Amino acid sequence: MSGAPGTVYLVGSGPGDPELLTVKARNLLESVDTVLHDTLPGPEIIDSIPEHKREDVGKRARGEWTPQEYTNHRLVELADAGKDVVRLKGGDPFVFGRGGEEMEHLAAAGIPFEVVPGITSAIGGPGIAGIPVTHREHASSVSFVTGHEDPTKANSAIEWEALAATGGTIVVLMGVGKLEQYTTVLIEAGMDPATPLALIERASWPEMRVVSATVGTAVDRAETADVEPPAITLIGEVATTRQRVRGFLQNRTGGQPLVQEEH
Amino acid sequence: MSGAPGTVYLVGSGPGDPELLTVKARNLLESVDTVLHDTLPGPEIIDSIPEHKREDVGKRARGEWTPQEYTNHRLVELADAGKDVVRLKGGDPFVFGRGGEEMEHLAAAGIPFEVVPGITSAIGGPGIAGIPVTHREHASSVSFVTGHEDPTKANSAIEWEALAATGGTIVVLMGVGKLEQYTTVLIEAGMDPATPLALIERASWPEMRVVSATVGTAVDRAETADVEPPAITLIGEVATTRQRVRGFLQNRTGGQPLVQEEH
Repeated sequence: MSGAPGTVYLVGSGPGDPELLTVKARNLLESVDTVLHDTLPGPEIIDSIPEHKREDVGKRARGEWTPQEYTNHRLVELADAGKDVVRLKGGDPFVFGRGGEEMEHLAAAGIPFEVVPGITSAIGGPGIAGIPVTHREHASSVSFVTGHEDPTKANSAIEWEALAATGGTIVVLMGVGKLEQYTTVLIEAGMDPATPLALIERASWPEMRVVSATVGTAVDRAETADVEPPAITLIGEVATTRQRVRGFLQNRTGGQPLVQEEH
Repeated sequence: MSGAPGTVYLVGSGPGDPELLTVKARNLLESVDTVLHDTLPGPEIIDSIPEHKREDVGKRARGEWTPQEYTNHRLVELADAGKDVVRLKGGDPFVFGRGGEEMEHLAAAGIPFEVVPGITSAIGGPGIAGIPVTHREHASSVSFVTGHEDPTKANSAIEWEALAATGGTIVVLMGVGKLEQYTTVLIEAGMDPATPLALIERASWPEMRVVSATVGTAVDRAETADVEPPAITLIGEVATTRQRVRGFLQNRTGGQPLVQEEH
């Protein structure tokens, strides 16, 4: 390497609607040399990036590198070659996005970087569905956890019992795969099975869906409605707000119904 | 009233840097007839809105109306007159912003509305300071609470003991005024006073500051550094990440140091 390294921008894409990119993210996607992305930002945003700039690091696993190791390596390689790079991550880079690890890798390699926050689907998804994650009357706190971890495993790091005891809203990102396990754990921890719950699939995407249920009925409702990743699960009284306001919620620009009927 | 009502857009401004507005928010601020705001979006964003469109509802209290009642009333009045209106709120409209109440008021009055999420300072503030709110090695969950409530009051709705028991990151929005009360409550609930803590003042504003401390030393450090609202308090192991990466964190466009030295 010779010359000054480029800068790496750890950028959150937001939940998927290109209009929910920040102004800064939009400008960087146009100005940098290369954009490293996986599939989480969604097709609308990825398709808006000039093809010659894109590198899909979600598909680079080849045995020699795990995807995260490859991404870390490639970011440093490009910056060392003087390139300015966006590492584009779905939602916010620091909400279950492993952005923290990438940032520490860059600092250890001496690469200058900047963090550009994005809208997490854990807040934006419920929001556009008419569900406030906090509410003066219904929720004094909100907690985010990842559904990638098996809560029945002995070494689970997530304290579901304490989360239930907060009495606040709980949002589970990547919330579909282990829905049965964590709803069971929450009920065992003393949560009322009648606690309202909403499954939000593909938040802000044209085919976004919202499925209303309770902690006790969620598994059945998710199966009947065939909810698929990416989706989040919101648990708490605030989920009922949507029923009172949905008749007046507007569509996304373009006229498509943004939020589809419950099943 | 005659004719169709206008649309109300409940829009989050993000933490204050105009580049952290979403593309959608930026476009709406240009296209709508009126923007109702208070001071939380910060001077840079408010000054960027044409003056003839702005109405400061943070200063409209006159005895007859409390500010929230006035805002609710004014949103309906403008929409009924056929105006498209942005209700601009600091951060995200649904994270301790009373956006839920405004939305329910609009629906009850028959006004069509749309929610445009924004970046909450609770995630974006730590992010640009080099602090990931979750981290595979340090934090499996993150909880957000408001510091406006006095935790020593018998009817406090915030379950600080449960929040401490989650073992995850805790972010207190509007975190300065009652810092002494809730750090005391957390230590009484069993939290180690050596738990890392960061005070983030005016997240993303040109004069942003980060003050590092622990749960035990936070009150002294905040006093010495003269931390003032708006500020958030982040509590958890992830706060230490910043020490390892800050040498490589870049400045905001324009060359001003975005994140100032700790005091």
